Amino acid sequence: LDRHKLKWNGWGLADKTFELGERADALWKFLADELAMDSLDHVPPRALEAHAPSPSALAESIAAELAAVVGAEHVKRDPYERVFHSAGRSFRDVVALRIGPLPSVTDAVVYPRNTSEVERILAIATEHGIGVVPFGGGSSVVGGVEPRRGRDQSSVLTLDTSRMNDLVSIDDTSQTATLQAGIYGPELERKLGERGYVLGHAPQSFEFSTLGGWVAARGAGQQSNGYGVAAALLAGATVATPSGLLRTGVFPNSSTGPDLKQVIAGSEGAFGVITEATMRIRSAPERRDYRGYLFRSWDAGVEAVRDIVQQGVPIATLRLSDPDETYFFGTFSSLGKTRSGARRVAEQVLSQRGYGRGGVFLLVGIEGAIAKVVGAVARSTTICVGHGAIPIGTGAGKRWYQGRFEMPYLRDPLLDRGVAVDTLETATTWSNLGRLYQGVREALHGALDSMDRKGLVLAHVSHGYATGASLYFTFVYPLDRTDPLAQWIRLKRAASDAISECAGTISHHHGVGTDHMEWLVTEKGELGMRLVRAMKTSVDPRGVMNPGKLVL
Amino acid sequence: LDRHKLKWNGWGLADKTFELGERADALWKFLADELAMDSLDHVPPRALEAHAPSPSALAESIAAELAAVVGAEHVKRDPYERVFHSAGRSFRDVVALRIGPLPSVTDAVVYPRNTSEVERILAIATEHGIGVVPFGGGSSVVGGVEPRRGRDQSSVLTLDTSRMNDLVSIDDTSQTATLQAGIYGPELERKLGERGYVLGHAPQSFEFSTLGGWVAARGAGQQSNGYGVAAALLAGATVATPSGLLRTGVFPNSSTGPDLKQVIAGSEGAFGVITEATMRIRSAPERRDYRGYLFRSWDAGVEAVRDIVQQGVPIATLRLSDPDETYFFGTFSSLGKTRSGARRVAEQVLSQRGYGRGGVFLLVGIEGAIAKVVGAVARSTTICVGHGAIPIGTGAGKRWYQGRFEMPYLRDPLLDRGVAVDTLETATTWSNLGRLYQGVREALHGALDSMDRKGLVLAHVSHGYATGASLYFTFVYPLDRTDPLAQWIRLKRAASDAISECAGTISHHHGVGTDHMEWLVTEKGELGMRLVRAMKTSVDPRGVMNPGKLVL
Repeated sequence: LDRHKLKWNGWGLADKTFELGERADALWKFLADELAMDSLDHVPPRALEAHAPSPSALAESIAAELAAVVGAEHVKRDPYERVFHSAGRSFRDVVALRIGPLPSVTDAVVYPRNTSEVERILAIATEHGIGVVPFGGGSSVVGGVEPRRGRDQSSVLTLDTSRMNDLVSIDDTSQTATLQAGIYGPELERKLGERGYVLGHAPQSFEFSTLGGWVAARGAGQQSNGYGVAAALLAGATVATPSGLLRTGVFPNSSTGPDLKQVIAGSEGAFGVITEATMRIRSAPERRDYRGYLFRSWDAGVEAVRDIVQQGVPIATLRLSDPDETYFFGTFSSLGKTRSGARRVAEQVLSQRGYGRGGVFLLVGIEGAIAKVVGAVARSTTICVGHGAIPIGTGAGKRWYQGRFEMPYLRDPLLDRGVAVDTLETATTWSNLGRLYQGVREALHGALDSMDRKGLVLAHVSHGYATGASLYFTFVYPLDRTDPLAQWIRLKRAASDAISECAGTISHHHGVGTDHMEWLVTEKGELGMRLVRAMKTSVDPRGVMNPGKLVL
Repeated sequence: LDRHKLKWNGWGLADKTFELGERADALWKFLADELAMDSLDHVPPRALEAHAPSPSALAESIAAELAAVVGAEHVKRDPYERVFHSAGRSFRDVVALRIGPLPSVTDAVVYPRNTSEVERILAIATEHGIGVVPFGGGSSVVGGVEPRRGRDQSSVLTLDTSRMNDLVSIDDTSQTATLQAGIYGPELERKLGERGYVLGHAPQSFEFSTLGGWVAARGAGQQSNGYGVAAALLAGATVATPSGLLRTGVFPNSSTGPDLKQVIAGSEGAFGVITEATMRIRSAPERRDYRGYLFRSWDAGVEAVRDIVQQGVPIATLRLSDPDETYFFGTFSSLGKTRSGARRVAEQVLSQRGYGRGGVFLLVGIEGAIAKVVGAVARSTTICVGHGAIPIGTGAGKRWYQGRFEMPYLRDPLLDRGVAVDTLETATTWSNLGRLYQGVREALHGALDSMDRKGLVLAHVSHGYATGASLYFTFVYPLDRTDPLAQWIRLKRAASDAISECAGTISHHHGVGTDHMEWLVTEKGELGMRLVRAMKTSVDPRGVMNPGKLVL
C-alpha cells in the first residue's frame, strides 16, 4: 500500500470519496430535517501546512543511531510523515487533523524491516529513554497511535511496521501461516489466496489495517462468527520488547500456566511490538451467501440471532439493525430515487403486515464449502421464519457485501458539512442485551437533549456468541463548530458511563487506546489493572512502549 | 462426596478396585512376559499410621484465628487429614504415599465455605507469612497440591474448597451457570442436569476433581472436541488473592487489553483461589454415539482424524490408539476369555486384510441433537472409510464410554504387584505430530533399555484442533523397588526432554505442578517466565499462594 495515496486527514484513499451521486441533495435535506439543522455549509478542513509541527525533538545523534539500524532513508522527520503518524482515525483524531491542533506530534518515524531491527530500535529507545509508538495501518479509532511522551521522555518515535510485510511460511498440514505483522489486509489475503487459503479476518478497516494491529487490539472481523476474532485466530507470536524477545510456541492447546497468547492479544503496543504472528488459516470458501430477513420487532430479531448462534448454525456474519438503523438505511438507499409503483405497493403491504417502521433488518452471511452453506442457509432461514421473519433474498446481502468497507468514507463528506458521526461498540450476555441497548441509547439521546441538539442513534447486534453478542452504535449529530471536542467528549462519556453501569465491556473490538482508559479501570478492577501494569513493567521497565496506553 | 470413602493412598473410592475378574491370572502372565519379569509378588503399601507426620508447625494462635473464620470444626490437624491433603495422584505422590516418605506434610487443612472466608484466610496467611495450597479434589497428576513451604515460611496450610459447592445461578438466556469452584464433577452435572443442562467437561478424574481445579490447571475433558476445554468454557471468574478480589466481567468477547480469564485459567493456585466461576453450559444432548473404526496404519488414522477435525465435523471425542496401544487393549479385553471360532476367523480375516498387528483403533464420540449426531456420524464414517478404515460399530464405543473413568483404578493393583504405570501428554501441530510421537516413544524405550528393563509404551491421539492435536502416552514397566522414584525420574526426564526438543508443549491438559516446572521455563522462555512471575508478585507479593508452583 503506497502511503502517499492515502488521505492524511480522513479515511482511506485520497482519490476516493463516498459516492453520493444523485442522492447528495436528498441526503443533505434528509439530514438537515432529522438533525434540525438550518444549513449544511461546506467548511473545508485545514491544510497540512497549517499544522506546522514544532521541530522534531529527536537528537541528531539518536537519529544517526537509528539510521545505522534501518538506513537513513527509513528514518523520517518531514512534516508529512510526522503529521500522518500522529493520529489514528478516531473522531478525536480526525477533528484534530481537520481543525487542529494535534495534541502531540511524533518526533520521527522509523521503518524497520524485521524483528532484529525492531529489537535494535527498542534498545536505542530504552537507552535514551525515548517513547516508541508501534504503528501498523494507523486505523485505530480509539487513539491507539497517539504519540504521547512518557514522563521524563524528551522525545517519542513512531515505529511503522509496514515494511514488515512478508509471508514467512505456510504449514499446509496444520493450516497455519506465519506472517510478518506489518502486512495489510488485502496483501495478506492475496498472498494466502495464491496458496488457496484465507485468513477470513475482515474488519471494516481491512484495507487500511495490519495483522499486528488486529492482534494487538483484539480486533474482530465482519465474518468473525465463522472465522473467529483475531485473538482466536492467533496460534503463536513473536514480540520484540525492550527486555528482549517474547516467543510463544505454536501449540493447538496447552496447560502450562497463563496463556501468553491472550496477553499478547490486547497488548496494544504497550508491552512490545508484535513482529510476527502465526495464524490459523482455512481453505478459501467455495461459496459466499449473504441474505436479508425482515422482522416485525427488535425483540423477535434478537431471539432469532440468539437461536442461530446457540444452535451452532455455522454462519460467518450476522448483523441485526435496530428499528432506527433499519429505517435510516432503508431511507438512505432510496434517497433521490423514484420508487416504482410496484415497490411502493410492496412497501405498503409489508407495512400493513407489521414490517414497516419498527421492523428490523437482519443480514446473515454464510461462507464455506457448498454443502455447508446450503445447509446453514436452510437452518438459519427456518429459525428466522419461526420468529416471524420474511426472507427478502440475497439482493440486500450482496449490496452489503460489496459495500462492506465503504461506510467509513462517509464521515469525511459529512464533517465537511458540519455533520458529526461516530461509532462505538460493546458486548454483553444475551440476558443483559436489552438493558445495555436501552441504557446506551438513552444516554446518547439524553446527552444530545441536554445540548439541545437532535441526533440519530442507530444500533445493530453483530458478532454473536453462545453467551452473548456485540452491540454497535452509530450516532450522528450537528457538529458544534466552536468546540467539537468538548461536545464529543460529553457524548462519549455519557455512552461509556452507560456501558459501564449496564455491565457491558467498554470495547468489543475497537480496543482501549486513549479513549477507553478511564473505563478500562472500572472494567478490569483495581487488581486487574495491577496485573496488567505488572505485565508491562516486567518487559518494559523504563516505560518505552506506547506511553500512556493500557496502563498509566 | 464423602472424603472418608476415598482411598487415601490410591485412586478413587476405597471400596472399589479395578475388576480384573477372571482376567487376573492371564493379565499377570501377560505382563510378566511383556515386561520380562520373573515374578509379580504382592507387596502391600505402608499403613497410614506409618507416615506418622511430625507435629503440625501451625501456631495455636493462628489456628484460633482460622477457627474464628471457618469454625473450629473446619480447621483440621489430625494425621489422616494432613496426610490425605499432602499428595495428589501423580506417580511421585502415590509412590510417596505407598512407600514413603512424603516429601512434605501440610500443617493444617482449612475448609472455607465462601469467597469471603477465603479472603480472610488469605489475609491471616499473609499477615503471618504462611503458605496456602488450594486443594479441590486433589487429583493433580503433576504434584500441583504438594504442600511446599516458601522461603521463610514457618508453616503451610491446605485450603480445601470442597465445602464451596453451590450452584449460585443459571442464566438460561445466556446459557451460563455460576458455581462455587469447589464442586465435584458429578454433583455439578447433577445440579445442571436438574435444569436440563450439561457443562460437558469430563476429564478421566471427573468423579474426583472440582471445577476450580479444572480451570486452574487448564484441564480438558474427554469430550473437549465438542464442549471445549475448561479454559474455553470459562466465561468469568472470581479469584480471592492475598491482595484482594479479582473479578472478571462476564463478556462474550472484549478487546480491553490482555484477557485475564486466560491468566486465571492456568494460574494453578499460585495467584489466588478461584472461588466462583461462570461457565458456558449447553442443553443436555439428545443422543450420544460412540463407535469404533479400524485402520491399517497409524498414518492413515492420523490423516483421518485430522480431516474430521479440519473439516469441522462436530464430534465430541476422538481417540486414535497407536499400534501398540491398539494391540495392548485388544489383548487386554480378550485376556482369560476363550475366543469363539467365529471371532478367531474374523480376526484372521481382518489380519489378512491388513488390520491386524500394526493396525490402529479409532474411537469417535458424537453428542448433541439427534439430527446433528446422525449427520456427524455419517460424515466421520465417510472420512474414515475414505482413509481405508473398517467401521466396527458401537460395541467398543459403548464399552469405552461405560468404562471411561475406570482406567486410573488399574494403577493400584499393578503397583501392588511391582508393575509401574504412568501417563504423560503433550500437544503439537499436525505437521509435527509424527516427529513428536517418535521422539517421545524412542526416549522412553531408550531410557528403559539403558536400565535394562523391558516396558510397554502405548500412545493415542486425542483432543483434536484445526491446527494440531494432543498425544497421550502410557508407559508400563517393572518397578525398581529399591529406588522407584529415581527410576521414574529418569523416564520422566527422558520423555520431557524429548517433548521439549520436539517442539511439543510440556502439558496439554495435566498442568505444570512440580513435575513440569523445569520444562515450563524452556517452553515459556526467560521473558515469558518473567511475565508470569510479575503477575504472581503483583497479586501475591509475599509469596503466600501455592509456594513453589508456576514460579520459583
